[in-house]
Amino acid sequence: MNYSAFFDQAIGQLHAERRYRVFADLERRAGSFPTATFRNGTASRDITVWCSNDYLGMGQHTKVVRAMQETAERLGAGAGGTRNISGTNHPLVELETELADLHGKEAALVFTSGFVSNEASISTIARLLPNCLVLSDELNHASMIEGVRRSGAEKKIFRHNDVAHLESLLKAAGPERAKLIVFESVYSMDGDVAPILEIVELAERYNAMTYIDEVHAVGMYGNRGGGITEREGLAHRIDVIEGTLAKAFGTLGGYITGSAAVIDAVRSYAPGFIFTTALPPAIAAAATASIRHLKASSAEREGQARQANRTKTVLRDARLPVMASDTHIVPVLVGDPELCKQASDRLLEKHGIYIQPINYPTVPRGTERLRITPTPLHSDGLIENLRDALVETWTALGIPFHADNQPALPQSDRVVPLMVSKAGG
Amino acid sequence: MNYSAFFDQAIGQLHAERRYRVFADLERRAGSFPTATFRNGTASRDITVWCSNDYLGMGQHTKVVRAMQETAERLGAGAGGTRNISGTNHPLVELETELADLHGKEAALVFTSGFVSNEASISTIARLLPNCLVLSDELNHASMIEGVRRSGAEKKIFRHNDVAHLESLLKAAGPERAKLIVFESVYSMDGDVAPILEIVELAERYNAMTYIDEVHAVGMYGNRGGGITEREGLAHRIDVIEGTLAKAFGTLGGYITGSAAVIDAVRSYAPGFIFTTALPPAIAAAATASIRHLKASSAEREGQARQANRTKTVLRDARLPVMASDTHIVPVLVGDPELCKQASDRLLEKHGIYIQPINYPTVPRGTERLRITPTPLHSDGLIENLRDALVETWTALGIPFHADNQPALPQSDRVVPLMVSKAGG
Repeated sequence: MNYSAFFDQAIGQLHAERRYRVFADLERRAGSFPTATFRNGTASRDITVWCSNDYLGMGQHTKVVRAMQETAERLGAGAGGTRNISGTNHPLVELETELADLHGKEAALVFTSGFVSNEASISTIARLLPNCLVLSDELNHASMIEGVRRSGAEKKIFRHNDVAHLESLLKAAGPERAKLIVFESVYSMDGDVAPILEIVELAERYNAMTYIDEVHAVGMYGNRGGGITEREGLAHRIDVIEGTLAKAFGTLGGYITGSAAVIDAVRSYAPGFIFTTALPPAIAAAATASIRHLKASSAEREGQARQANRTKTVLRDARLPVMASDTHIVPVLVGDPELCKQASDRLLEKHGIYIQPINYPTVPRGTERLRITPTPLHSDGLIENLRDALVETWTALGIPFHADNQPALPQSDRVVPLMVSKAGG
Repeated sequence: MNYSAFFDQAIGQLHAERRYRVFADLERRAGSFPTATFRNGTASRDITVWCSNDYLGMGQHTKVVRAMQETAERLGAGAGGTRNISGTNHPLVELETELADLHGKEAALVFTSGFVSNEASISTIARLLPNCLVLSDELNHASMIEGVRRSGAEKKIFRHNDVAHLESLLKAAGPERAKLIVFESVYSMDGDVAPILEIVELAERYNAMTYIDEVHAVGMYGNRGGGITEREGLAHRIDVIEGTLAKAFGTLGGYITGSAAVIDAVRSYAPGFIFTTALPPAIAAAATASIRHLKASSAEREGQARQANRTKTVLRDARLPVMASDTHIVPVLVGDPELCKQASDRLLEKHGIYIQPINYPTVPRGTERLRITPTPLHSDGLIENLRDALVETWTALGIPFHADNQPALPQSDRVVPLMVSKAGG
């Protein structure tokens, strides 16, 4: 038994499929986002990050950084224990109050990551409901899939955003059976939005529970940053809203909000919550500062919508194949894994632009893409640099541009952070 | 279908079994550990924490807090992405180098928690080995159990620290089958230590892989804080050493160290690692500062060993039923869940001493206990206060003291942080 050979083999397979990942060693600079120092061995240079999930740049916001520093000064670096055994710190209690208020729910529960929040919450909720049937969108995130799997409950996958398919599954299950609908508001690789109103109406008609993942929406949509469910006025009709503190809020951790009973049940029964060290007080305080700021300020949301729309327009005007997206996410089609990797490498080496290639299995084969996330901090000048670099790269590598005979992109394809809009698009 | 009723019922069951947990809302004060502010509704008061897993008080160490503050100032609050998509930050790369060095391994991988590190690593390793048999100590932590479960591999549980039982299982599996032995160095509820040498010898004889959880030992044992495997000179004979940054190192996160191949395989295949935001640079820098300090300084380890031994002696001299423990963990037997909760409440309310009760299912019924963790910062005076408070509480509640006719506790039952000692005890 040569154990090492199995691990070498597993790695070799990824190389053969061109799926082996090399992590870019970055040092972002607070005050200079989206600029970062990129290190390659002993060399280092400045680059522009165009694929960060710190969507609003809140990770460098003075209020957020100060809250972190000031709390570390007063309370120290770590929490020192699980939530039950000496790790519940007052900034974390305040954060949970803030989150419940953000979504208009009775209670909230913070986890060390969004991944854990989905996995622990979905598995626990589905396990506590006798003979539960989970209805899960086919494009749900890996963390939700793990949560459903671990629950041991029966699951049915409905076609992406397909409410007719969902309805047929709900109908077949019957009104008496426990049913949990699990879906996202913004799907992060395409930037499309779920038909939340229709799903909520179906849930009410067929008496199902609803669980929505808003990780790519909280902070960025709705008047107070409560996500698409706030923008659409639907938060009160969803049972559990899950979100993250690690994207638009710029810090770390995940959470759920909902009724006091469901939150208490997850708190009391989820091993992934119970047996893990609590989030440090400094992280909790930084997250609270970020949420409070974004509840009051719409400048970041408006800036993001403006620069995301501008990026789409500028790239399309250059005939770059921008894929349809209803949100701040700007996917540009490459359609080949090798070219996608080459494009990313060339952008970094020749143009100082960092955009990670997105290949299978994250997206279906043939839809390999560059996923661009403009923030309010990406200036018009940076957008023009991006366009020029992409055009040079597309030309040099022979990647197809948007053909003149392809249909024009829909007018609805614009980022609307605040107003009520029809979801789905 | 009344969903709420199921969650209410689940919570009601915990109340009925006296297992419902109420979290203590604490504010530790950097510079004043183990003192903390305890909040109860609108009231607040100073208490002494006697159950923290910030075992050496590193969470308040100036170097650690400064590293966190300084890095937040320069790089911002969060990482801004997964490890693959813009989240790999330079302090995290440095931390992984530091951890590989700590355990004398080729490589290390950092996770957002120790729970995730165990779950993701064990499940991935066992899944990549064809027809793997997992041999798991019966007292392994919940995170390891989840990892084994999720791997889908066949598992056999061996009786706690029972090498004869382990050997019979290894023998039965045969030399050709892939076998992974999963165990801890220090078991946190009893404070006993695994017979690591014997387990390593068995693994070598029967050609099994070894995975050890050192979360309750790293920082605290060995000349450089490399854990029990360093103290016993066995680190190089273990395949994977798992540890945490959230206990003795005083910050947040978990990790594994091992050969470059096994680390790369987990990095490349574990969903719980791939699809989650990276640890913030400020947390990584704080952890590195803590590890570096404890590699060079033994003062904290010696202080902990001295105060843990002193606590055991002082409590035993007062005939309090201190359970056998080879480590810094000092369990005091209550033997009844209701009395255990009452003792904890009385200590907090009457004496300002916070020790969380440990009841079933964390420990077997009938062995309910107070689990005390003396740090170098618990002075002789605080130990005497603790003794007086425990004696008062034991007397008031009628909890049994150590009877004169019970056997004396073994002499070996002392904390030895640095020297080589026979494991097992």
